[in-house]
Amino acid sequence: MRSRYIIGLDMGGTNIRTAAVSPQGKVMMLRHAASNADSPASVVAENIAAQVCTLEHDARGRGWGTPRAIGIAVPGPLNVFTGTVMAAPHVAAWRAFPLKKRLEAALGRRVVVENDANAWALGEFWRGAARGRRNVVLLTLGTGVGGGLIVGGKIVHGLSGMAGELGHVTVEPDGALCDCGAHGCLETYASSSGMREIIARRLGRRVPARYLDQQGNFSVRRLTVAAAAGDRIALETFQLAGRYLGIAISSFLNIFNPELVVLGGGVAGALKFMRRTMDVEVKARAFSAVAAEARVVRAALGPTGGVVGAAYAAIHPTET
Amino acid sequence: MRSRYIIGLDMGGTNIRTAAVSPQGKVMMLRHAASNADSPASVVAENIAAQVCTLEHDARGRGWGTPRAIGIAVPGPLNVFTGTVMAAPHVAAWRAFPLKKRLEAALGRRVVVENDANAWALGEFWRGAARGRRNVVLLTLGTGVGGGLIVGGKIVHGLSGMAGELGHVTVEPDGALCDCGAHGCLETYASSSGMREIIARRLGRRVPARYLDQQGNFSVRRLTVAAAAGDRIALETFQLAGRYLGIAISSFLNIFNPELVVLGGGVAGALKFMRRTMDVEVKARAFSAVAAEARVVRAALGPTGGVVGAAYAAIHPTET
Repeated sequence: MRSRYIIGLDMGGTNIRTAAVSPQGKVMMLRHAASNADSPASVVAENIAAQVCTLEHDARGRGWGTPRAIGIAVPGPLNVFTGTVMAAPHVAAWRAFPLKKRLEAALGRRVVVENDANAWALGEFWRGAARGRRNVVLLTLGTGVGGGLIVGGKIVHGLSGMAGELGHVTVEPDGALCDCGAHGCLETYASSSGMREIIARRLGRRVPARYLDQQGNFSVRRLTVAAAAGDRIALETFQLAGRYLGIAISSFLNIFNPELVVLGGGVAGALKFMRRTMDVEVKARAFSAVAAEARVVRAALGPTGGVVGAAYAAIHPTET
Repeated sequence: MRSRYIIGLDMGGTNIRTAAVSPQGKVMMLRHAASNADSPASVVAENIAAQVCTLEHDARGRGWGTPRAIGIAVPGPLNVFTGTVMAAPHVAAWRAFPLKKRLEAALGRRVVVENDANAWALGEFWRGAARGRRNVVLLTLGTGVGGGLIVGGKIVHGLSGMAGELGHVTVEPDGALCDCGAHGCLETYASSSGMREIIARRLGRRVPARYLDQQGNFSVRRLTVAAAAGDRIALETFQLAGRYLGIAISSFLNIFNPELVVLGGGVAGALKFMRRTMDVEVKARAFSAVAAEARVVRAALGPTGGVVGAAYAAIHPTET
């Protein structure tokens, strides 16, 4: 029987999303599970394999046959060719971990592994904001800042698949220390962890309760609500993020001459508060002919971007 | 008779180099002519066509038949697909100038037009420092700073062929004003015009005679000689250039995960005076796994890089 679906799995710090995706890129079935990212490396991998098995079982029950291909999106730099995860930010135990090999051994079949931001970029390219656009820069503005580059309709992987770390371009040489060890990366301004630090420094290490969620954690969603209510610190934090996003985007425009810059992740939900300072920098820095051809838009797929893109990667394997 | 050569032409601000290039990328014959870049737009184009005709004539005399293809490298942003030059820095009259169309009309045959830094990157890829490397970042450190990006063995052109303006990434947001209108572009630190400005600002607008050539113009070659003799201002100017080159290269490494960064142009001749401060920044900023895979080297082809790469572009035309 002809296979009716592709499996796309998106491994996050908290949740694993596993989807049956149609050959046209529609999500037919979606499962959530805890990722248990602080478990030992092999346990995390076995958990992923178990999610794939469970989805396959459910799909068989619906008469969809076996999956055509399996794509797995994971955070952090990885070698897409070997499927080795170098260092995943949310999975402490994955250090030079041969994820692809382990999953293929567990599942008895071929698996494609892709960086989660690259997968999201492919998802937007296939079914989202970047449909039909062959030159696209995607920035994921979440806890950190990730990136996916599409040139000529394909992800730029570089020599060993670690390309696209767009959150770690320097935008302020003597800026704050980034988790990566460098100073003044885009991530220190345009991620939720960076914004938390900016506010903590500004207020002497105390982050006001109005920016915290019910668990007491800093929340960009709460910061966005505060900005909407006119809160000065919240507004200025987003304006600063907009300035440095504009500086980085100007460089990306001059480097890539793309058609589209897509912003995803929680911070992108506050784009309206960042837009003015961002536009000022783009107007001042990018070549006008290049800037005139590119738009900066929000991602369209949201939380399913990763699974859709993982499925796309599975049926469009990367050339070495 | 089977054609034995390709024409590659490199249009500079002062000189036009026109070469017969073998199908293996060897320069078989090389002609120099003045580019008369301040003439009216059409005159400059006719001059280029005349150089091509003269070379063809000479080649016919040697029994080489007609050229297999013709490639023209020109400075400044251009749309490689239409062959329209947007704004050439050294050819004042070329503003949205349909160079490809004019040359094809004059020569009665197909012409491929490519950006000069892209052409140089292709030359290094074909016959120079980047042979066999499929992911390469080339920086031309001359009067300005240009760039050429090779990803998967092909030039990154972007939507309309204006990609690769690597001299115009922001490395210091509030830095000096660049010719492009932005502040703190890489070009303001790592080009000869930028270095001239840095020295002039430092010394109150007076550039010492020891940095000037016989025509009284600022000369990076003279600055390099002074640095070699221990001149403090010269050394510090190169060290500053090295710092900002290192900052920009770190971003390029994190963006592209390339195998090789190739530095060409007069300023690259002083690489040994920039290397230390450059390496400090790369070590501090680039992901170590990415930096470990990439080397920073000088270009191998020098002044013939452009003609060799223009010939390569002519026989490997860009897909739209």
